[in-house]
Amino acid sequence: MSSNNYYDVTTWPIGNPSEDVGEVINSIIADIKERQHASDVNDGGKPGAVIYLPPGDYRLRTQVLIDISFLRIQGSGHGFTSSSIRFNVPHDEWPELHELWPGGSRVLVDLPELPVDEEAETSKAGPSKGAAFLVKREGSPRISSVEFANFCIDGLHFAADGSDLPAENTYVNGKTGIHVSSANDSFRVNEMGFIYLEHALSIHNADALSIHNNFIAECGSCIELRGWGQASKITDNLIGAGFKGHSIYAENHGGLLVTANNVFPRGASSVHFNGVTRSSVTNNRLHSFYPGMVVLDGNSSENLVATNHFLRDHEPWTPFLGIDNGLDDLHGVLSVRGSNNSVIGNHFSQIIDAGSIRPVGATPVIIRLREGAGNFVSNNHVVAMDVHAAASDDCFEAQVGALLTTDTAAALAVTAVMVDPESTRNTVLDSGSDPQVLADRAANAVRATPTVG
Amino acid sequence: MSSNNYYDVTTWPIGNPSEDVGEVINSIIADIKERQHASDVNDGGKPGAVIYLPPGDYRLRTQVLIDISFLRIQGSGHGFTSSSIRFNVPHDEWPELHELWPGGSRVLVDLPELPVDEEAETSKAGPSKGAAFLVKREGSPRISSVEFANFCIDGLHFAADGSDLPAENTYVNGKTGIHVSSANDSFRVNEMGFIYLEHALSIHNADALSIHNNFIAECGSCIELRGWGQASKITDNLIGAGFKGHSIYAENHGGLLVTANNVFPRGASSVHFNGVTRSSVTNNRLHSFYPGMVVLDGNSSENLVATNHFLRDHEPWTPFLGIDNGLDDLHGVLSVRGSNNSVIGNHFSQIIDAGSIRPVGATPVIIRLREGAGNFVSNNHVVAMDVHAAASDDCFEAQVGALLTTDTAAALAVTAVMVDPESTRNTVLDSGSDPQVLADRAANAVRATPTVG
Amino acid sequence: MSSNNYYDVTTWPIGNPSEDVGEVINSIIADIKERQHASDVNDGGKPGAVIYLPPGDYRLRTQVLIDISFLRIQGSGHGFTSSSIRFNVPHDEWPELHELWPGGSRVLVDLPELPVDEEAETSKAGPSKGAAFLVKREGSPRISSVEFANFCIDGLHFAADGSDLPAENTYVNGKTGIHVSSANDSFRVNEMGFIYLEHALSIHNADALSIHNNFIAECGSCIELRGWGQASKITDNLIGAGFKGHSIYAENHGGLLVTANNVFPRGASSVHFNGVTRSSVTNNRLHSFYPGMVVLDGNSSENLVATNHFLRDHEPWTPFLGIDNGLDDLHGVLSVRGSNNSVIGNHFSQIIDAGSIRPVGATPVIIRLREGAGNFVSNNHVVAMDVHAAASDDCFEAQVGALLTTDTAAALAVTAVMVDPESTRNTVLDSGSDPQVLADRAANAVRATPTVG
Repeated sequence: MSSNNYYDVTTWPIGNPSEDVGEVINSIIADIKERQHASDVNDGGKPGAVIYLPPGDYRLRTQVLIDISFLRIQGSGHGFTSSSIRFNVPHDEWPELHELWPGGSRVLVDLPELPVDEEAETSKAGPSKGAAFLVKREGSPRISSVEFANFCIDGLHFAADGSDLPAENTYVNGKTGIHVSSANDSFRVNEMGFIYLEHALSIHNADALSIHNNFIAECGSCIELRGWGQASKITDNLIGAGFKGHSIYAENHGGLLVTANNVFPRGASSVHFNGVTRSSVTNNRLHSFYPGMVVLDGNSSENLVATNHFLRDHEPWTPFLGIDNGLDDLHGVLSVRGSNNSVIGNHFSQIIDAGSIRPVGATPVIIRLREGAGNFVSNNHVVAMDVHAAASDDCFEAQVGALLTTDTAAALAVTAVMVDPESTRNTVLDSGSDPQVLADRAANAVRATPTVG
Repeated sequence: MSSNNYYDVTTWPIGNPSEDVGEVINSIIADIKERQHASDVNDGGKPGAVIYLPPGDYRLRTQVLIDISFLRIQGSGHGFTSSSIRFNVPHDEWPELHELWPGGSRVLVDLPELPVDEEAETSKAGPSKGAAFLVKREGSPRISSVEFANFCIDGLHFAADGSDLPAENTYVNGKTGIHVSSANDSFRVNEMGFIYLEHALSIHNADALSIHNNFIAECGSCIELRGWGQASKITDNLIGAGFKGHSIYAENHGGLLVTANNVFPRGASSVHFNGVTRSSVTNNRLHSFYPGMVVLDGNSSENLVATNHFLRDHEPWTPFLGIDNGLDDLHGVLSVRGSNNSVIGNHFSQIIDAGSIRPVGATPVIIRLREGAGNFVSNNHVVAMDVHAAASDDCFEAQVGALLTTDTAAALAVTAVMVDPESTRNTVLDSGSDPQVLADRAANAVRATPTVG
Repeated sequence: MSSNNYYDVTTWPIGNPSEDVGEVINSIIADIKERQHASDVNDGGKPGAVIYLPPGDYRLRTQVLIDISFLRIQGSGHGFTSSSIRFNVPHDEWPELHELWPGGSRVLVDLPELPVDEEAETSKAGPSKGAAFLVKREGSPRISSVEFANFCIDGLHFAADGSDLPAENTYVNGKTGIHVSSANDSFRVNEMGFIYLEHALSIHNADALSIHNNFIAECGSCIELRGWGQASKITDNLIGAGFKGHSIYAENHGGLLVTANNVFPRGASSVHFNGVTRSSVTNNRLHSFYPGMVVLDGNSSENLVATNHFLRDHEPWTPFLGIDNGLDDLHGVLSVRGSNNSVIGNHFSQIIDAGSIRPVGATPVIIRLREGAGNFVSNNHVVAMDVHAAASDDCFEAQVGALLTTDTAAALAVTAVMVDPESTRNTVLDSGSDPQVLADRAANAVRATPTVG
């Protein structure tokens, strides 16, 4: 038993943290529960504890089950390095590499297959089996103030999925980093690293959640807010999902603030809202290789999408050439099914090879209002260029090279705003020249951006 | 005496941190002062120290007085859980609750009544008696780089105030979490939790202050910047004050940056500036149950209020039904007494029951320019709906339910912008249709948002 | 040798951290390298380590060389206090001062002159000799996940530079805080303090870098991103460089997010981009005493500059009166050489003494488009006033006094937007009245802000 509420997994007498840190942490949680009894004597509470993982490799063979409030699990290093690049380095070059794996305070997720979590399933969360950390507690109050800070959760390997892709490039392995399946309050995920997980962070029924300053990359999906929730924030993260998954996904949330994130490729979407209301996607830097970067779907309404920088260009790294999310260029870089949203002051750069446009010969769409009414689209600036797509075996150089390539001579014709007949009474101001705005002027108020002459 | 500058309150030989952590911390500060003498030999300084509070309950019966720079007080857990919900659960259900109190590294504020701080009084700070942590030092230089990080300050109980409200719902108890009464530089408050305090954080005369990523809720007032100050930031916090108090208040500040905060109800205001200049309120998510959400008062001028999401709807939780801040619907969701402010690219959702409008029959006002000149109001989107207000005994479900309710059929007439005769030479662009902008067109430049047809 | 990967410089047996913490840290790094060998057995990695500096004074006489990934160096206190103010206090008043030096976990940079780093030189980084922390490693993969957190790097003194300025006011000493000369991935610099360094933070070839919540002031230059890079963020910092240097500088970066920073004087620029593309400068509070606050240069294109608050006024502190950055008032507060940038929803306050305008009699320029094409300048609000510049010996009072001074009666004529002939096909909307926009209407689309009457 611990004499206070600070635990170090490397000094805890039960289990071996190198072999199974899950067993170690579960025994610590059992110790906390044994020592801390509910009491209202003298306003005394159950303060919880902190569990510390010094830098090191910690294999996790047993799922951690968190069912107490006020538990903080913290390390000293988010430990990201690109496994994706390494797995695409020829094997005979590996001995020359300085290091082969992520590091820091690193949890190596090596779970046997676990049963699917039922509650998660009923809300269509997708696979929650294989969660390294499962937070689940029924009853009242909702579990509160669990904090994850500054350690690395590494899913180690992806698995062959039947496609032509090498196994390590599939973003599939059935592993989840942190899965919260019960309603929760005031959780924090700060300064973490997540890598090579099919789902990094999947949180159900969140209230006042903060996901801040994390590094979540090379995961199938990065942040998924499932079920329903309110008053949360996803801020100041570096995020990049796989081509099948979500970088940031939320459903049935109100009052969500998504800001100051740098969301890089290759997520199928950068931000996807489903039935989300009165929320903000503001001030993010968003970059994708496919259409459908920001999706407001399922009657997502009264949201503010403002002062974001959208860049859509092409995959420049050879291992993923030819991969996409299945959407064509009419889908819209920003697609809206919902009402009374505000789309204000965004910059869109569409930098693509005209020869790659699908359907062939189509004019790509930047903002598309598909269903709903009363959306306000104002002061958005669309830049579109036809740039020959180059590719390279060197991931970083390929990306930086593509990012820095500009060619103002090669203007590309686009539809800045397309309003479908199912979306009416919208206001479109200064977001495209008159021919760039396809909308029924009798059903929508349009003021085209002035042009010269 | 400590051999270095790291202190743990649970191992310090003087006092009992469970019984009075205030006495313990004060004796640690005395030790630091005894060991660290001013010296310029070899550029040697007085480095200060860190005082660590592991997770645990620490009653504070003696006020902590901080009068040295470079002191960091840190815990391992912000420890929030809703005391408000718990106190409104019938007492016979308490034994079924998993926990009754906040947790983490938790300071239980249990001070006897203290004399009112004089300096605070002269600048009208309200009650500073009862501050758990008082920072006060005269002379030069200003006290610098005090840091508070990742612990919980819990005021425990509110008190009957003569109203009909149950004592625990009054937001009154004369307790302050941190009160800084002297001019200060480069302070930080990060990752803290504050709960059930009449004043969470009251800071006078701040320079380059950072209040970042805290959880400040169920307090009478949350953040109050008093006196005067400059170049500070309030960023990325979750904040919600009581119905009588301020969520974020600042007076006589210049260059203040308020951004990326998620400010939820039920503060009398979300952001209140008094005599504040050249500051920013940008990119926040703001939610309130009353008018007067953002107030620029006392000749607050040259401020930027941009790309915020404002939601004003109704209290849905039964214990607080019927409570408001006393302002009627003509007050304005955003109210401006000042000049040359910029109000750009904000989204306003006004989702209220038309039957609740006061004065009866009035048209609610969203943006109101009351006094001043030269304000620039552009590209704001106002959504207003008449929605029957539902209420529930379950706080979270009530709030989420209300948040997710949309009904585009039930449009509500509002005045998007009202310009009083005392405010002139303003520019109002694309922020409401012609009839929605009440302004003397001879004294103000108005371009109405285009409408269909 | 350490038994795990947590090191405390005060308990490490080699060297004396008070006398030379550089030697201590280098010996710790050697220990880590000796203990951690590359291995792919069982997915085992080289986790790196954390090196802890408790609060204290640590002289650094030997440069730290970091060539391993996953190293976190952390302290417990950013330790800023104004050395600039103290050095300008008469020496006979020093005995009355509470403290003379910065504190916290403080590294005193006291290096002998070091040879200039060659790689840095080739990319024109300026002096990298004198870096307290040098990160440099060739080969693959790029060095990853080095983290610096919550300590202070103090350059101690500036040096006479041949000008009339007292030595301690020159911002020159050849010292750099952290210099990263090799390509790197997923680095973090969080909660640090930097002071009295000629270059605080100079990072070459960064990928997914995060510079967050630091205090970087009274340094010649604060943040310099050199070489090339992508997908990084500079967020939520308090920053203020010297009059010769950069507060935030980046070259050849793509996808950089600069947001939520409070950048105060007196940098020669607040944000300077050179050849930067598809990046964001949004939602910052920027304050400078000179023109040229934000500079997009070297064909910086497709960037978004939105919802920032710009304040340009005069130096009010007597020791620096008469100092400037050499630019006249026609330069532009925001100056653009590049194409397809978006400048949306910014507030500009130009509060100067009309008698100080240079060239004499000129009309100051706020936004100047110098070269390029296709920039979109919309919904910016310019406030300009002629205010008699007061100055004071008290730095804080001088600055706050100036900040809070407003006088709506004293309007100053300015050119809100000037478009040079070398910049064409720009769109300028609602960013100045017709006479305030100097642009060839045949080459640029202009819609002036409506005016009264």
